Amino acid sequence: MLDMVKKDVKEKKDNKGITVDKDDFSEWFTQLMLKADLADYTDVSGCIVFKPGSYELWEKIQKETDKRFKKMGIRNTYFPIFIPEKHLNKEKEHVEGFSPEVAWVTQVGNTKLSERLAIRPTSETIMYPSYSKWIRSWRDLPLKYNQWNNVVRWEFSHPVPFFRTREFLWNELHTAIATEKEAMEEGFNILDIYKEVCEKYLALYGLSGRKTESEKFAGGVASFKLHYIIPTGRVIEGPCFHYDGQRFAKAYNIKFLNKKGKEEYVWQNTYAISTRMLGTMFAIHSDDKGIIIPPKIAINQIVIVPILFDDSKEKVLKEANKIAKELSEFGAFVDERDNYKPGFKFNEWELKGIPLRIEIGPKDMEKNKVVLIRRDNSEKKIVDMKHVKSESDRILNEIQDSLYKKSKKLFESKIDHADKIDRLKKIISEKKVALSPLCKNIECEESIKYETGGAKAVFISEDKVKNNDKCIICSKKADYLVYIGKTY
Amino acid sequence: MLDMVKKDVKEKKDNKGITVDKDDFSEWFTQLMLKADLADYTDVSGCIVFKPGSYELWEKIQKETDKRFKKMGIRNTYFPIFIPEKHLNKEKEHVEGFSPEVAWVTQVGNTKLSERLAIRPTSETIMYPSYSKWIRSWRDLPLKYNQWNNVVRWEFSHPVPFFRTREFLWNELHTAIATEKEAMEEGFNILDIYKEVCEKYLALYGLSGRKTESEKFAGGVASFKLHYIIPTGRVIEGPCFHYDGQRFAKAYNIKFLNKKGKEEYVWQNTYAISTRMLGTMFAIHSDDKGIIIPPKIAINQIVIVPILFDDSKEKVLKEANKIAKELSEFGAFVDERDNYKPGFKFNEWELKGIPLRIEIGPKDMEKNKVVLIRRDNSEKKIVDMKHVKSESDRILNEIQDSLYKKSKKLFESKIDHADKIDRLKKIISEKKVALSPLCKNIECEESIKYETGGAKAVFISEDKVKNNDKCIICSKKADYLVYIGKTY
Repeated sequence: MLDMVKKDVKEKKDNKGITVDKDDFSEWFTQLMLKADLADYTDVSGCIVFKPGSYELWEKIQKETDKRFKKMGIRNTYFPIFIPEKHLNKEKEHVEGFSPEVAWVTQVGNTKLSERLAIRPTSETIMYPSYSKWIRSWRDLPLKYNQWNNVVRWEFSHPVPFFRTREFLWNELHTAIATEKEAMEEGFNILDIYKEVCEKYLALYGLSGRKTESEKFAGGVASFKLHYIIPTGRVIEGPCFHYDGQRFAKAYNIKFLNKKGKEEYVWQNTYAISTRMLGTMFAIHSDDKGIIIPPKIAINQIVIVPILFDDSKEKVLKEANKIAKELSEFGAFVDERDNYKPGFKFNEWELKGIPLRIEIGPKDMEKNKVVLIRRDNSEKKIVDMKHVKSESDRILNEIQDSLYKKSKKLFESKIDHADKIDRLKKIISEKKVALSPLCKNIECEESIKYETGGAKAVFISEDKVKNNDKCIICSKKADYLVYIGKTY
Repeated sequence: MLDMVKKDVKEKKDNKGITVDKDDFSEWFTQLMLKADLADYTDVSGCIVFKPGSYELWEKIQKETDKRFKKMGIRNTYFPIFIPEKHLNKEKEHVEGFSPEVAWVTQVGNTKLSERLAIRPTSETIMYPSYSKWIRSWRDLPLKYNQWNNVVRWEFSHPVPFFRTREFLWNELHTAIATEKEAMEEGFNILDIYKEVCEKYLALYGLSGRKTESEKFAGGVASFKLHYIIPTGRVIEGPCFHYDGQRFAKAYNIKFLNKKGKEEYVWQNTYAISTRMLGTMFAIHSDDKGIIIPPKIAINQIVIVPILFDDSKEKVLKEANKIAKELSEFGAFVDERDNYKPGFKFNEWELKGIPLRIEIGPKDMEKNKVVLIRRDNSEKKIVDMKHVKSESDRILNEIQDSLYKKSKKLFESKIDHADKIDRLKKIISEKKVALSPLCKNIECEESIKYETGGAKAVFISEDKVKNNDKCIICSKKADYLVYIGKTY
């Protein structure tokens, strides 16, 4: 008998809720994605469906980023998804970096193409031949064209929804600028936009930093990224700014006449934020009950669950809808379904991460009260009906703030200093990230991977190395402090 | 000497303005697209760059359509761009309709794929296997998932920017519904949304109508489209509603348990609006001076051109910027460039279609006046400074209204009745569209093409056929009135 009960409970769990702890990250994340209705697998290996539960959050990221881009004079365009092979091959390092992952169109209908077409893994090589045509004089600069599109990189390592899919969505902003100084200034301004969107909306704390020479963008001069750390201690490489100097300008012949009438190559930058940030957000904020969506990115910040009994149903529903109307600016809605019990509804909206739940039943109504329950920490608060709006607003802000602080704490708890190789190994084995002095010798950077079983120098700290800091590998003078960890 | 002057003029024209009349449509449209900075060719045959001048208008079409979709409970998703060949092949008519134009990925990196992947020409065949998995009971219906994406159809006929490109942008909305009745109701509601966006924003008059059996969507039961006519008399097939009945549901096994616990196939619809509507709008509203953007879709409705002289420059610029601020809700901006003469600026903004131009010079300022010039009909109006906002608002509404009326007039001027084949031939040879009685016999419909040199029965009129109407081809009893014309 007991066995049957247990089985029943387990089946119920299997059916709706998440059945493993967050510690079992990979299984937990897969269940989270499927059960919270965020994504689904398809028969195309490594490609997922972005279901509305995740796609609509991506739309909000787009909207907030795009608004800030437009204020900076950035304009949106759309370039072809196809890149003729000869264009892809013009910048040597770039093509070497991307060609192992390129998907090739070789046939249309029954006709074999005379030149195969790459599906864009990134669009430099299709955009820059146009830039070369369009840019003539200093009057045409700066040119700041962005696109929100799909790209394909046929990675052969294990695909993980949102984090590593063979097709993903992103923005790619490619600018052409008259001077190196302006190019660098623009770079950090745009990295700040990404940082602001991730902080304010996704409630994610991250650190920006320059990549080492071996980790930079293929074909660029220097790369800067925002970095996040998920609970498993893996580093997520987030939005990026690649400073390309004049390397692509020279490969694609993008020149302008300066004010003195002299021909010069332009300076170029490339930027992106991708759907990988959705995965980062789900991984960092969620818990064993499901996902937690930060209020500022949530489509619906509040769900109202009426407690319905036959004799008071109509009255309670009416009141619930009145409250929903009052809270319409928070996207509040009433879960009116009468074929589900309140407990079922609580679980469902916890699973799907609605930040705040309001419960209202006949007894609450008599006292002119409602119950507010936070998704992030399950805190309950009984609130006077007349304060429901101001209290909701206050609590939603508190949730947003608290999620951000928690993500910062998580990040900081994952960082440890290591001056010696043994300490570094220990930190990595504890699933954390080390901050260590390193020299620029490429062999030292390479050997980190072997010493730690796969960790790498992810990015360079903005903190300066001290005079007596020694490279953690060769013990010679260190050039910088680097964050060393495994990436996801 | 005269020759030199002429040459100079011609070169100037070549350089900026459009050098041919709208009557020479193909050349005029190409120049329009290139010179008004709307699009550009690329080295990928048949694919264009959507430059900001056109792409930003597409964003507005998306925004207005999407807002209305969301109100109807339609939700946005993103499905993979790739379709495994076995999925594409499940609905026989569908695959026959699309496969001649499919672009195939056969290789990734250096690896040959074991099953080649189609690049979506439309997404039924990748979405419906998921629908089959997701839909279990009547509680899961209606399911209304939309995506804004890129699709590829490798047409071999002559590509024309916006109208016929091998990659284009659109929305594709695919719904699954419990009953046939609801499915049909939904269909006309959504066609109305498209119609409203095209009327209110693009200022385009169009007629909706059902397609004949031979013109309907491959794999569907019935197709309805909105139709527009460009100045050459060619019909443009615009936004569409395809009623698929249960045909795809049967091919992809999309079933649900109804309220009585019985298994049924769902009923399905498919809808789309594409970047082709940008071409339609440019073709209909523009003139020999350039494009005309209807105010409601324009990013910048007003350009302010200050007339600058050395002694009053600062004062005039200050006033111009004050006006721009006052008119910020119209996206007004000041063309401050001092390396160009006012006449040059007038031409440029006329070419690029800004609906209203405001000129302000030192003499105007003395009289507290500004000059307002409409793009659509060149009408000038001198307006008191204090009325500039209300007058701008009024004139912009007038332009919007007038463009719509003009497009309606154009449409109507292109339609002529034809009961006899000779009359039909004459109408088509005059580059117009005929309204003619036709029977359902497929051979009669087919023979129209031969009789007219390529015109077809584009859509069925909502007007009923009269009792004594005879089929224009076989003279037997007619089944419907059809619009016969050449499409573009």
